[in-house]
Amino acid sequence: MAYETLDYTVTDGILTLTLNRPDQLNAFTVTMADELIAAYDRASADDDVAAIVVTGAGRAFCAGMDLSSEGNVFGLDESQHPTLADLYDRFDDPAIADGVRDTGGKVSLAVFRCTKPVIAAINGPAVGIGATMTLPMDVRLASDEARIGFVFGRLGIVPEAASSWFLPRIVGISRALEWVYSADLLSAQEALDGGLLRSVVPADELLPTAYALAHRFVDGHSPVATALMRRMMWQNSAAPHPVEAHRIDSLAMFHTSIADGKEGVAAFLEKRPAEFTGRASELPPFVPWG
Amino acid sequence: MAYETLDYTVTDGILTLTLNRPDQLNAFTVTMADELIAAYDRASADDDVAAIVVTGAGRAFCAGMDLSSEGNVFGLDESQHPTLADLYDRFDDPAIADGVRDTGGKVSLAVFRCTKPVIAAINGPAVGIGATMTLPMDVRLASDEARIGFVFGRLGIVPEAASSWFLPRIVGISRALEWVYSADLLSAQEALDGGLLRSVVPADELLPTAYALAHRFVDGHSPVATALMRRMMWQNSAAPHPVEAHRIDSLAMFHTSIADGKEGVAAFLEKRPAEFTGRASELPPFVPWG
Amino acid sequence: MAYETLDYTVTDGILTLTLNRPDQLNAFTVTMADELIAAYDRASADDDVAAIVVTGAGRAFCAGMDLSSEGNVFGLDESQHPTLADLYDRFDDPAIADGVRDTGGKVSLAVFRCTKPVIAAINGPAVGIGATMTLPMDVRLASDEARIGFVFGRLGIVPEAASSWFLPRIVGISRALEWVYSADLLSAQEALDGGLLRSVVPADELLPTAYALAHRFVDGHSPVATALMRRMMWQNSAAPHPVEAHRIDSLAMFHTSIADGKEGVAAFLEKRPAEFTGRASELPPFVPWG
Repeated sequence: MAYETLDYTVTDGILTLTLNRPDQLNAFTVTMADELIAAYDRASADDDVAAIVVTGAGRAFCAGMDLSSEGNVFGLDESQHPTLADLYDRFDDPAIADGVRDTGGKVSLAVFRCTKPVIAAINGPAVGIGATMTLPMDVRLASDEARIGFVFGRLGIVPEAASSWFLPRIVGISRALEWVYSADLLSAQEALDGGLLRSVVPADELLPTAYALAHRFVDGHSPVATALMRRMMWQNSAAPHPVEAHRIDSLAMFHTSIADGKEGVAAFLEKRPAEFTGRASELPPFVPWG
Repeated sequence: MAYETLDYTVTDGILTLTLNRPDQLNAFTVTMADELIAAYDRASADDDVAAIVVTGAGRAFCAGMDLSSEGNVFGLDESQHPTLADLYDRFDDPAIADGVRDTGGKVSLAVFRCTKPVIAAINGPAVGIGATMTLPMDVRLASDEARIGFVFGRLGIVPEAASSWFLPRIVGISRALEWVYSADLLSAQEALDGGLLRSVVPADELLPTAYALAHRFVDGHSPVATALMRRMMWQNSAAPHPVEAHRIDSLAMFHTSIADGKEGVAAFLEKRPAEFTGRASELPPFVPWG
Repeated sequence: MAYETLDYTVTDGILTLTLNRPDQLNAFTVTMADELIAAYDRASADDDVAAIVVTGAGRAFCAGMDLSSEGNVFGLDESQHPTLADLYDRFDDPAIADGVRDTGGKVSLAVFRCTKPVIAAINGPAVGIGATMTLPMDVRLASDEARIGFVFGRLGIVPEAASSWFLPRIVGISRALEWVYSADLLSAQEALDGGLLRSVVPADELLPTAYALAHRFVDGHSPVATALMRRMMWQNSAAPHPVEAHRIDSLAMFHTSIADGKEGVAAFLEKRPAEFTGRASELPPFVPWG
């Protein structure tokens, strides 16, 4: 599978997904959106991928929308007069799906449904969609040269990519509002202090740190359990009542207990490493649950 | 428009909304509630108001309910036997709306639906409803002389003003419970450490800090984009799934892209300040969405 | 009432609920689950219990599931082929309730519905269900000898006890995912830094600290107001809109205002301690609300 805007390389079970338009500072286009969605779905289906590290080629992570192709990027058709009802009733209708639905949001939903841990390795400026596309990732690491900006307000537009759901959940509603209102470019340290980043490291340690973390997340673990954990945590934490999580938990425990869980417990009792055989490409039938 | 309990002054696009019963430490009454609701709705409709700073006259922010007019403040009629069903089916029925519904909660919902950034400048004691009325505001600043108390437990009553929704979202469920259980008066430093406040400053720097922040939030920005950001972040962050945010995001991006977004992108490409013409009093037809 | 696996002792209004299988490091069994559920429900009904401290006998808090009785603990019947629909439609059907529903989750829901403040005093290793059973408690304290591990991934299974709802709400989604992916055993300091714990104290100060906090939460307070606070904060904070909290708040304020609130306000105005007479065993009729 060839990509115009990405590099997709799997090494030692870790997919490095590189935004690869370095001469345009990896600016986001409709093609990049389509390729990102395809790449996340491919990674979910690919049992050779245990975890994903997302980074940018060259000196930027992603400088935001490629404004030189604005019409394409916004994807909208001014003759549409979409209503909120359309976004429910005609969600997959091409007129709405292609003409109204936010391209960045489609990418965010692809990350959300992905069944592999996703780590952002923010190597340089991450601006606009370059910032919001990292929010559905599980953990964000940054180089001390990174700059992060939710700069939509400067352009007279709004934060997108479902960031109104993700950003307040990560940094709290007050800080989220301050960052989107002010539209400032944040230093890596400010983003760290605000809780957006897990850690900030020198540029040459960024990818090694990301890979070490990815391996810590997946090496020797059950890919089925890991996939279920990712979906459960993201989705259940937003449920209006813990009983919703209990329903999913129960099924997930039921299915893992009669599969990799048997080996896991046996290995534990025998004080040996477990040899898990489950495949994340074949999750129990109750997944996806919503 | 004249207020008995408030001062409403707009300077340089910033509304200063002052709780103005200094001889009663700005204690909260039904009249103050009605006037606050009217003032927030007025500010949303007033294009001369870009942001709001809320503070108290004299040495207090708000000392809580004016217990000298208890019957009025609670607003309840003991002959009512309200059920949860009444709070759904008869929400706007005067018997429920005036006799049962919590007055502070009506104010909180008015802040929630407001389309301008709201900054609390807590200049002194903020107790009971004086504390909970700040929770739906976007950012809380305090003087080092401020004291904040969720003291309801001392009176045998419960936290109100929808604070059971707001407070845990701001400071986390464990700290929220500790504060309401203990009913202690918190120092500004404790409230800062707990994540309730953005910053604590000397008393004479409080309003200047609030105004500087307000200007940073709105100067040169699109009031339509700012209004949408506020509503999107508060409301979408509580949705049970990010696709709900995606629906709203998409419409908000659609509408801003064909309006202030055009000017914003043009100004960016031409490296000049944008001249936005959108008015927050005329939001796209899909707002309010819920 | 006699327990096989617990000790239930009430002193000065504080229930100490001790996991009491010290020779098995208080490992969790189906009997312990049943007894914990009964004990939490008993405490809610017992007006002599104002607050609850949960700790472990001996050197551990709870070492996780007792894998020597695995079949019992998982509680599942492999001949079941449960679907998500079953977890809705047949939630209380014994085949699902006993054969599929996660035992730890039943305990978590019992803590969730409890009407007394619950403080975890984590005295030693808290692993697996030993860690997740503390998440629905209001505050977690730990000895500096405690270790906390969400180790499910090492066994090829998933976090349970509705922890996919609770853990991200307490420590944030990124840290929650890092902890469950890595399945590491955390030091008390790491758990403190991550926001899981309120404080870490020397081992011999753990119970005194827990009791002091419990007394600060309840002494002289209205048990009805405290019970309502607990249920309101936990439940309303997850609602999709603050108006849901407003409905509950209004009823809770209505009912407390015509009961302990009358005494509370009178005592405040007369500058004397309040003498509350309400009983948490007799909450207003709108509770439970969901």
